Amino acid sequence: MAAERLVVVGGDAAGMSAASQARRLKGPDELEIVAFERSPFTSYSACGIPYWIGGAVSDRDDLVARTPEEHRARGIDLRIRTEVTELDLAGGRVRARDLASGAESWTGFDKLVLATGARPVRPPLPGIDAAGVHGVQTLEDGQALLDTLAGTAGRRAVVVGAGYIGVEMAEALVVRGYEVTVLHRGAQPMATLDPDMGGLVHSAMNAMGIRTVAGAEVTKILTDERGRARAVATAAGEEYPADVVVLGIGVAPRTELARAAGLPLGESGGLLTDLSMRVRGYGNVWAGGDCVEVLDLVSGRYRHIPLGTHANKHGQVIGSGAGGGYATFPGVVGTAVSKVCDLEIARTGLREKDALAVGLRFVTATISSTTTAGYYPGAAQTTVKMLAERGTGRLLGVQIVGGAGSAKRVDVAAVALTAGMTVEQVVSLDLGYAPPFSPVWDPVLVAARRAVRAVRAAGV
Amino acid sequence: MAAERLVVVGGDAAGMSAASQARRLKGPDELEIVAFERSPFTSYSACGIPYWIGGAVSDRDDLVARTPEEHRARGIDLRIRTEVTELDLAGGRVRARDLASGAESWTGFDKLVLATGARPVRPPLPGIDAAGVHGVQTLEDGQALLDTLAGTAGRRAVVVGAGYIGVEMAEALVVRGYEVTVLHRGAQPMATLDPDMGGLVHSAMNAMGIRTVAGAEVTKILTDERGRARAVATAAGEEYPADVVVLGIGVAPRTELARAAGLPLGESGGLLTDLSMRVRGYGNVWAGGDCVEVLDLVSGRYRHIPLGTHANKHGQVIGSGAGGGYATFPGVVGTAVSKVCDLEIARTGLREKDALAVGLRFVTATISSTTTAGYYPGAAQTTVKMLAERGTGRLLGVQIVGGAGSAKRVDVAAVALTAGMTVEQVVSLDLGYAPPFSPVWDPVLVAARRAVRAVRAAGV
Repeated sequence: MAAERLVVVGGDAAGMSAASQARRLKGPDELEIVAFERSPFTSYSACGIPYWIGGAVSDRDDLVARTPEEHRARGIDLRIRTEVTELDLAGGRVRARDLASGAESWTGFDKLVLATGARPVRPPLPGIDAAGVHGVQTLEDGQALLDTLAGTAGRRAVVVGAGYIGVEMAEALVVRGYEVTVLHRGAQPMATLDPDMGGLVHSAMNAMGIRTVAGAEVTKILTDERGRARAVATAAGEEYPADVVVLGIGVAPRTELARAAGLPLGESGGLLTDLSMRVRGYGNVWAGGDCVEVLDLVSGRYRHIPLGTHANKHGQVIGSGAGGGYATFPGVVGTAVSKVCDLEIARTGLREKDALAVGLRFVTATISSTTTAGYYPGAAQTTVKMLAERGTGRLLGVQIVGGAGSAKRVDVAAVALTAGMTVEQVVSLDLGYAPPFSPVWDPVLVAARRAVRAVRAAGV
Repeated sequence: MAAERLVVVGGDAAGMSAASQARRLKGPDELEIVAFERSPFTSYSACGIPYWIGGAVSDRDDLVARTPEEHRARGIDLRIRTEVTELDLAGGRVRARDLASGAESWTGFDKLVLATGARPVRPPLPGIDAAGVHGVQTLEDGQALLDTLAGTAGRRAVVVGAGYIGVEMAEALVVRGYEVTVLHRGAQPMATLDPDMGGLVHSAMNAMGIRTVAGAEVTKILTDERGRARAVATAAGEEYPADVVVLGIGVAPRTELARAAGLPLGESGGLLTDLSMRVRGYGNVWAGGDCVEVLDLVSGRYRHIPLGTHANKHGQVIGSGAGGGYATFPGVVGTAVSKVCDLEIARTGLREKDALAVGLRFVTATISSTTTAGYYPGAAQTTVKMLAERGTGRLLGVQIVGGAGSAKRVDVAAVALTAGMTVEQVVSLDLGYAPPFSPVWDPVLVAARRAVRAVRAAGV
């Protein structure tokens, strides 16, 4: 019999990474690991769903990094289709319901990992639950959308929301031959960018034949006589005909259990942890993935950033701690990359409004360049915007919108932000140069040069 | 009449960047700028020559960033086809020869910039100057090679050397339909990588139909009755038939004038400067580009790294100083990227032998991954090797060989090296993730995870 039992709530990236890492450090004789997952799936790439919908990924199973059977073969007692319904922290146990039978039972734990993920925002609008209205958060959501697409003759799609999921779903539907309209609240798509950079995304999407509607407040999903979605209505009184509606409005931490158990939540409703991903105030409860808030190293604020790459890192750190080792997650700088067809979109650090919100004064510099030497065949245009602190010249953020080879350049800025570099230090960075890969001055360096001038011109 | 005269020796990247930046800071009334250039060309991309030869770049003029006329229009007294033949530093003047007329004259300076570049290594072998043997250092070299290719019926090319220029020229000749043999001295091509990583390049080149011959010491170029190259002979007694021979053996700093003038040169024969790119011991003489040695921030040694991106940065720094401003060039970390057809090759920091040479003890970690999510269409294999210091875990170097999307990932390591990060810090970096751009763990992070384990296993 094992000396200790680790219970994991949630079987996707964070939870199963934690379980796997703990298992690597401790064998079944030392540590029993029980993991609960509501769905039939484990360890899958939710980020890959748009590419499955679009047809770039043909098989749902391709998105599954590790199946329940593979986890079980590694000595993890994985219970799928089983939902945890209550946390009894004082009693050291969780209550779980077998979704097939409805039977509930308690399972004791010595150590607990909460990896309950996020849920899509689904505003309580008339018609929101109609047939033909789809979220794309889980594999089951994706399958349901594919079933709808297969059974629908019409080719008009309305995507609500123009964040990462919205633009990626717009691409997926364009690839499938749909006439796509994207309704979004803000002045520009991709509110994760400053509006001037979002404007570039707007223009590019329109050029791809994707219609975007700014300032659109969705009020209602109109349905036909069979109860199926047929149009999306907005507060402006417009109706957008739709054979399928995709919701990409964002997600919120799924922390009802944690809240009921009295665990500390942040402003976004995500769990708050320490640097080793233990829930604050608890020595034997960890949390990670889309249900936690993370420290933004640039602003010093906690933010909810649901992203598979963070979830995996959290899982590693949690599994190390729960397995008796040691690791920490120092925080994020807010890096994100995406694409719509040929357009690449990236950001890291602070937008203008983020900087203002935390009292930072800054200058900005925006430049256009190419992703390869200008004379190299296929050189793509790219625009880089950089924010630097006034006076100090410290790098605060970078946004990039452009053609092939644009997005991952943001990584240079992500590392520089982590290191606290000034834009002058960025100018001197020894980045890889050869004509197929970069102009002689990499676009990020060109932006940094411009930012240096802006910092000097602005004074303190 | 201008108060001061700045004389620039050499009209390519470093020299003309310096002249342009100085002109930006000071107008013609304050500063007269005279630049001497031997060739008819200024400010061109020597790195682009292989792509011009290969046909990817159709027009030689595409490689010229700024013509002599454009420089003159900016108030720079540019004298092309004029070679500086002597530096009289005590007298504050240089002697230059008009290559057309042979006339020589002295030009006085208040400030002097040396940007004399590098010359291809051309060992004194029999036949080395025969028709059909070509270097590819200058636009004139490139034109001569193209003329030879146009006038040659045979399709057998021998490339001597398997460094950056060698492999890029191998690609160019393959693209043009040549049967290419690359002769190189080392055990593997790309001696700028460790042999294990060079071995990956070897295999990939062979798979592309490029023949590589390791350990080949070229002794002679055999010629036909008309004096044209017909084969390359090696010390092993082999003869490699060749309709054209391309030399890619490397370059050496062109510092004969500087040496004659008593200026300080380093171990590689490059000029030694301070951080503001002034020649050591001289307040009014700057040097930059391929004729100087640069500080390697990882090893603490001075190295000769001829690369357009450094030359441009040097020019900016020199121009700022000579124009009365202030800037410095802190050094390099040794980043370089290249490709042969679909194979991308990158390195930064130290190889194993570099680390050993400066007394560093290290561990290595090598991993295979993909450049996008594994399930994303077109996911390319990539191999990342990482060196970390024993005990401290400080990142020392990264090498990458793989498919599309491999090379520029080295920039993450370049920034991390500059910042002095440990491999544990690298694991936590917030790099951009989305399925079209990266697996959920970026390959660089996977290598860093492995390196962390290696550091721990090795102890101090």
